Amino acid sequence: MPKEKELVFGHRNPDTDAVSAAVAYSYLQNQLGYNTEAVALGEPNLETKFVYNHFDAKYPRIISAINGEVKKVMLVDHNEKQQSVPDIDDVQITHVVDHHRIANFETKLPLYYRAEPLGCVSTIIWKMYNENDVEVPAKIAALMASSIISDTLLLKSPTTTDEDRAALKSLAKTAGIDYESYGLEMLKAGTNLDSKSTQE
Amino acid sequence: MPKEKELVFGHRNPDTDAVSAAVAYSYLQNQLGYNTEAVALGEPNLETKFVYNHFDAKYPRIISAINGEVKKVMLVDHNEKQQSVPDIDDVQITHVVDHHRIANFETKLPLYYRAEPLGCVSTIIWKMYNENDVEVPAKIAALMASSIISDTLLLKSPTTTDEDRAALKSLAKTAGIDYESYGLEMLKAGTNLDSKSTQE
Ligand SMILES: [Mn+2]
Ligand SMILES: [Mn+2]
Ligand SMILES: [Mn+2]
Ligand SMILES: [Mn+2]
Repeated sequence: MPKEKELVFGHRNPDTDAVSAAVAYSYLQNQLGYNTEAVALGEPNLETKFVYNHFDAKYPRIISAINGEVKKVMLVDHNEKQQSVPDIDDVQITHVVDHHRIANFETKLPLYYRAEPLGCVSTIIWKMYNENDVEVPAKIAALMASSIISDTLLLKSPTTTDEDRAALKSLAKTAGIDYESYGLEMLKAGTNLDSKSTQE
Repeated sequence: MPKEKELVFGHRNPDTDAVSAAVAYSYLQNQLGYNTEAVALGEPNLETKFVYNHFDAKYPRIISAINGEVKKVMLVDHNEKQQSVPDIDDVQITHVVDHHRIANFETKLPLYYRAEPLGCVSTIIWKMYNENDVEVPAKIAALMASSIISDTLLLKSPTTTDEDRAALKSLAKTAGIDYESYGLEMLKAGTNLDSKSTQE
């Protein structure tokens, strides 16, 4: 019997981590026997658009609510209700993977919850691939590396941990990218410096 | 520099899992470089008393509040405020390991949170020993096996999972006990049948 379908998504006003962690976690869970689809709760921002263009990756289907489509969901990169779909109370949250504080979050049933105080949730998901001996496909590795670059500002933010550094190095190798030069280009795309200077 | 001391504890009106998961998780965390002490939020019940007597294990120090003793704590087998110390809001919760729903729980800061919908939290902690390649000492294995027997009613409760079964088998082997016969004796001790029949 095929498993009941579940949606996987990050927070509203998605950033690179919210979208790419959903893509990476959905792939991992499907390898482990779940039946999931990654979706996004909004259009890509400038930086995320650059990332998905650069690696010719498909941006997930955009939804604004569950609208009865599924009964169960998995959250990444958020847990607070006000950051999720407006009808989150109508579905069962079966899994959460996050790196934020826990607040305004409550379930009726036990669930899988994995939080660690790291710089990026894609780092936690990278650890979960390793724990489960699942190989990260090159394109997903590129998206996860981009998430770490985005959340840690190329390993410069004070939230950066040794595990974020190790994950970025490993994922960049799998993706075949030089994360220093790619990272600068990506962060620059997010600030939209080019289009600004064109306008000026 | 030694790590700042943290207390590890399960819920009020402790059962065998609440106390023994604190003992087991505190030992694991200390192996991993933390500086923790397991404590209990109350006297042992009949079953738990039997367990600690049977294996000549030291019941943790009993506290009724943090009272400024430490600034950071780790919770096992619960997360809801009303099940914890009354002054839980005065300290930082750095880690939670649990197998219950999440409710009435909120943090100011990111933390380690590991929840799985298994029959017993000691099963999750057994997985964490394995993930971190830490050997379970025989006496702690006996306490963890007792927790699983208690929470799953000797693997008979509907919450029992294959992982609980695997954990109990492995821990019983490490502890050198026949979990079927020991388990029946232990569950019987908890119901206090003997003292009842003496009174009748
Ligand atoms: Mn985010
Ligand atoms: Mn993030
Ligand atoms: Mn309990
Ligand atoms: Mn329990």
